[in-house]
Amino acid sequence: MIVTLKGWASRDAEAIERVEAVIREHELEVHEKRGTEYTVIAVIGVGDNVSACQIQLEAMDEVWKVQRISNPNKFVSRAYHTQNTAFPLNGHVLGGPEFIVMAGPCSIESEPQIMACAEVVADCGGHVLRGGAFKPRSSPYAFQGLGLDGLKLLRRAGDQFGLPVITEALAIEDLPLVEEWADIIQIGARNMQNFRLLEAVSRCKKPVMLKRGIASDVDEWLGSAEYIVRPGKTNVMLCERGIRTSDRTYTRNTLDIQAVPVLRELTHLPIIVDPSHAAGRRAYIPAMMRAAVAAGADGIIVEMHPDPPKAKSDGAQSLSFPEFRAAMTLLVPYLRLFAEERAVTLDPIVV
Amino acid sequence: MIVTLKGWASRDAEAIERVEAVIREHELEVHEKRGTEYTVIAVIGVGDNVSACQIQLEAMDEVWKVQRISNPNKFVSRAYHTQNTAFPLNGHVLGGPEFIVMAGPCSIESEPQIMACAEVVADCGGHVLRGGAFKPRSSPYAFQGLGLDGLKLLRRAGDQFGLPVITEALAIEDLPLVEEWADIIQIGARNMQNFRLLEAVSRCKKPVMLKRGIASDVDEWLGSAEYIVRPGKTNVMLCERGIRTSDRTYTRNTLDIQAVPVLRELTHLPIIVDPSHAAGRRAYIPAMMRAAVAAGADGIIVEMHPDPPKAKSDGAQSLSFPEFRAAMTLLVPYLRLFAEERAVTLDPIVV
Amino acid sequence: MIVTLKGWASRDAEAIERVEAVIREHELEVHEKRGTEYTVIAVIGVGDNVSACQIQLEAMDEVWKVQRISNPNKFVSRAYHTQNTAFPLNGHVLGGPEFIVMAGPCSIESEPQIMACAEVVADCGGHVLRGGAFKPRSSPYAFQGLGLDGLKLLRRAGDQFGLPVITEALAIEDLPLVEEWADIIQIGARNMQNFRLLEAVSRCKKPVMLKRGIASDVDEWLGSAEYIVRPGKTNVMLCERGIRTSDRTYTRNTLDIQAVPVLRELTHLPIIVDPSHAAGRRAYIPAMMRAAVAAGADGIIVEMHPDPPKAKSDGAQSLSFPEFRAAMTLLVPYLRLFAEERAVTLDPIVV
Amino acid sequence: MIVTLKGWASRDAEAIERVEAVIREHELEVHEKRGTEYTVIAVIGVGDNVSACQIQLEAMDEVWKVQRISNPNKFVSRAYHTQNTAFPLNGHVLGGPEFIVMAGPCSIESEPQIMACAEVVADCGGHVLRGGAFKPRSSPYAFQGLGLDGLKLLRRAGDQFGLPVITEALAIEDLPLVEEWADIIQIGARNMQNFRLLEAVSRCKKPVMLKRGIASDVDEWLGSAEYIVRPGKTNVMLCERGIRTSDRTYTRNTLDIQAVPVLRELTHLPIIVDPSHAAGRRAYIPAMMRAAVAAGADGIIVEMHPDPPKAKSDGAQSLSFPEFRAAMTLLVPYLRLFAEERAVTLDPIVV
Repeated sequence: MIVTLKGWASRDAEAIERVEAVIREHELEVHEKRGTEYTVIAVIGVGDNVSACQIQLEAMDEVWKVQRISNPNKFVSRAYHTQNTAFPLNGHVLGGPEFIVMAGPCSIESEPQIMACAEVVADCGGHVLRGGAFKPRSSPYAFQGLGLDGLKLLRRAGDQFGLPVITEALAIEDLPLVEEWADIIQIGARNMQNFRLLEAVSRCKKPVMLKRGIASDVDEWLGSAEYIVRPGKTNVMLCERGIRTSDRTYTRNTLDIQAVPVLRELTHLPIIVDPSHAAGRRAYIPAMMRAAVAAGADGIIVEMHPDPPKAKSDGAQSLSFPEFRAAMTLLVPYLRLFAEERAVTLDPIVV
Repeated sequence: MIVTLKGWASRDAEAIERVEAVIREHELEVHEKRGTEYTVIAVIGVGDNVSACQIQLEAMDEVWKVQRISNPNKFVSRAYHTQNTAFPLNGHVLGGPEFIVMAGPCSIESEPQIMACAEVVADCGGHVLRGGAFKPRSSPYAFQGLGLDGLKLLRRAGDQFGLPVITEALAIEDLPLVEEWADIIQIGARNMQNFRLLEAVSRCKKPVMLKRGIASDVDEWLGSAEYIVRPGKTNVMLCERGIRTSDRTYTRNTLDIQAVPVLRELTHLPIIVDPSHAAGRRAYIPAMMRAAVAAGADGIIVEMHPDPPKAKSDGAQSLSFPEFRAAMTLLVPYLRLFAEERAVTLDPIVV
Repeated sequence: MIVTLKGWASRDAEAIERVEAVIREHELEVHEKRGTEYTVIAVIGVGDNVSACQIQLEAMDEVWKVQRISNPNKFVSRAYHTQNTAFPLNGHVLGGPEFIVMAGPCSIESEPQIMACAEVVADCGGHVLRGGAFKPRSSPYAFQGLGLDGLKLLRRAGDQFGLPVITEALAIEDLPLVEEWADIIQIGARNMQNFRLLEAVSRCKKPVMLKRGIASDVDEWLGSAEYIVRPGKTNVMLCERGIRTSDRTYTRNTLDIQAVPVLRELTHLPIIVDPSHAAGRRAYIPAMMRAAVAAGADGIIVEMHPDPPKAKSDGAQSLSFPEFRAAMTLLVPYLRLFAEERAVTLDPIVV
Repeated sequence: MIVTLKGWASRDAEAIERVEAVIREHELEVHEKRGTEYTVIAVIGVGDNVSACQIQLEAMDEVWKVQRISNPNKFVSRAYHTQNTAFPLNGHVLGGPEFIVMAGPCSIESEPQIMACAEVVADCGGHVLRGGAFKPRSSPYAFQGLGLDGLKLLRRAGDQFGLPVITEALAIEDLPLVEEWADIIQIGARNMQNFRLLEAVSRCKKPVMLKRGIASDVDEWLGSAEYIVRPGKTNVMLCERGIRTSDRTYTRNTLDIQAVPVLRELTHLPIIVDPSHAAGRRAYIPAMMRAAVAAGADGIIVEMHPDPPKAKSDGAQSLSFPEFRAAMTLLVPYLRLFAEERAVTLDPIVV
């Protein structure tokens, strides 16, 4: 931790001593250096003492800024776990040599709808069936999902076509049902900092996919993942789904494709890309599915629907079946490249 | 609702007919107008049919964009409730002729701490005591609050110094306790789109303060408020607390002071400003307390602490007692101006 | 153009008449439709009258909002020029079946430096040599470029290795020199709305590459391109280089990879991606070079340097020669896929 | 300057030595500290060597990040010039005990228009007349200003009503004219990083107002100001005009009102607020005029027009004469408070 004093304090021996006394109280080492303008103090130590000391220093009048050097997230950081995390998924491996395609409707609406989706996903070589049973909606007047009935339909469709299924848990009370009926539990963007829910999902056995918050930075996202990952709970993946920026004219969000190599450097967890919520319009999705492969993600999650204009939610960003088939056909040569590179190294993208 | 067709569809009678058929299926009126480049269709009607039709149109290949004209939020919109909402609070009126000052520590830490805060708040003319018992923290290793013990201490401090108290409910399971022990229930920024929690708090009798999400736009914020406000539940206020922007060097967030007149135009609900979370550093807070009064808000909520460097959370943005006293002294003449103007009109700020 | 009246004006015949009188004064057609809450007026017509009328309507008290339907940018819009624009470049075609790689140092520093770069670019199959002679620097104390001497060195290096050269013109007074010595004129991000410079570069014969402004939206970017493109001046390309967002911790900017398919839909101009300025750190660049190919761009521009730590500018985002060679080797199979797809269609990415 | 090494380099004596050798080459002092996870090196020294060394370190493989502690902007920083800068303006003092009101039309359109504006500005107690002669427009088809004729009309109107005048110089070639005819030279938001223009305006004698770039952070803004301020050229003021954020629904920009106390802490230059460009809609401007006073700015610049719907630019954000008069009347008691506080201290707002 590096502490920079304010200009006046940098030249005031008593002020410096007040700051150093606080550091010593936390049983941390002090290394002071007076520069030409500012005095800087390096604080050496580990663990909770550092965090507690940081909070106190930040509030002192004498202090200009405090910069943490060591990583506060022990379980998700690559610094403590250098190997990539990969875990089995229905005969495939997430985070492994194969690029995983998850697809399905935004909301589960009926048995024929989810069955038709599952059939196309399986037929196109997809690996996981997605479908929402509990829906977070920004208006109270919008469709809120089929709930348990939806979960059961999703399960049936996945089983029939040999696909594991992923669905979102919106609240702690959904977790027992979602864990009973689904293979992967999704935590949505709006819940990325619903810390009680994160603690609860950490106690679930099934894999968890944590979406990035609407305007979260990478450190906050990893801080939220740290709530879930712990010894014995490492089957967690991160999902980039676009962040909110100042340009919202043609796309719903800005797909932060650079997050793929950034996360690869910072964490050992698998990385999924969701081009559907990033784009918000289906014309842009096929190109982004390919960009996700080329950027080195471990998989994608894509929305599709038998009849997008009839979808009860997210129709504008759901591929029709012909569109999904075309996009998957265009994806195939990229998946082949991906597999060839992963056969050589799991991380070909980091120089 | 205005529907603009894509270029090719604008010149294709069958494409236009497909779009209009969908509108008619929803029992809405169609008014088509062919421009020089694009065909535009005005859709006339009210209620849920319009929302359902909108989702379908947005997903049609023929459609370029769909713009909603009428307001989907009936309960919070000024269009349906032109008078400002105001409600009593311990002998004062929130949203009325008096500017309400809420203050207190970020977290309740001990009986002497909260008692000392309450005494200073009351002595400086503050109206409400704030204090967190359940804390949302971006790291799982940070202080998470005293819980029920904190609520009881807050209640005791408020009672002793004649101040109603406000505290955050972090999850549905906190609501019974918070409603039992506090006078105002706060929903925090990270929970602004925790829709289950919004539905649950709508069933509480006590007033609710809904903070703006970290990067929420005004329409999303009002959409969340619409989850809470309903006939019989109008004691709800909105709290601007800064939004995340690209400049995060010197302040934690960017205080969107313009949100005050914008909300005043769009909604009848009272508007509170939180300069502490916007600034993140206490040097900037007194100026922003004054700006909030001048901008026409109904109140502020400010963090203070007997010894900020010893605070377990948010010390950097908590005013010390001398700082809080000084800021309140500087605020007094502005409060006098405020009261004079509100005596003439409740909304002096909108031209 | 769609004009929505305010609530009160929507129900006031005289107010409506005042608005319609303004539209008629501009010799445009009026089509009024009264909805359940708002009156909406469709305005039909073309050309400058519409723009003039729009400004006036936006300032009327009666008007809530004005939405332009038709595209104000006639020369850059695909609506008026459906075929992709492509133009020859030293035996290659920009915007054609081949993906163009431009590379070189941020600043031209010396003859050995630029010669060494040119040799590696040519040897790796790059098509264009980049190098800055006039440098925009956010501090007045930073290296400002070699000026004319730099241009001459760049020319010599390009000629020796058979590469056309691109360099930035920082101001109108640079244009004659840049046009004399370079093959492509770059307009930088900070000058995207330097409208005088745009007008001046429009009169140059050489191709122009217009970078996106630091936080510009796509419409502003196309508006700036419209200053340059005109009959007889269509050799213009757009360069996405990352936009500023709220997450600046690990990358300098957020690469808006979705801008590639968005621009492809809106404009006929070629699209280049600059992963170096987006990332700001070289570890992330190779993955983004590949993502740019997969997303369907027409080329990339990448910074490299014989010894990045000795670079006078942008060393942190400049690939070393071994890094550049490795990144180009990894790129080759993606370029092959690109060429195969472009052989079938110039726009495989738009569904 | 604090240099943090990457994890692997922190534990590799040769890597550390390579970094320290670079620092010593620049004749700077090295102070190394090995933490539990990372090695951190404090670099002590002043001047250009530090900047040159920083660029080199940032590009080294061994280096994770480099943080500058000392301020690179010597002329604008309060660290080197603790007293507020104030300068005379037509019998008033900018940056002094009086709050300065600048007002006038966006564009000068005709003699009657600018005369009428000047009369109202003077009559309401305004101090400076604004008016644009050279206009930066995001579309090439929009009104571009009257040029020299406009400057002459502005001068005549100012002289007749005893008001100094401010107008924008769009390019270096405008400077001689603007300096001849105007009293204050404005550099617009889109030109904040047009460094050649900044260098040129630094050689002008007249005061300069530098607007904040569209999405510039405070450090970039001060870096641009550093291009202008130098010994003998200190009559420079900064103008906050709103920054671009993700919420653009109801306002054109987000007024960063916190920038007022932030700048007050960092720089000695006077601070102006432009609520017109921030809001983009006139309903919100009067409240923001007052907020600017309360926040402790030194002045405001506001757009007004005899007939906003007839304005050739920015009509939507121009106050009509009655609106401007009403806003000024509401401002008066705030100006009185301002004067009372400035009589005691020039910086009442910083705790």
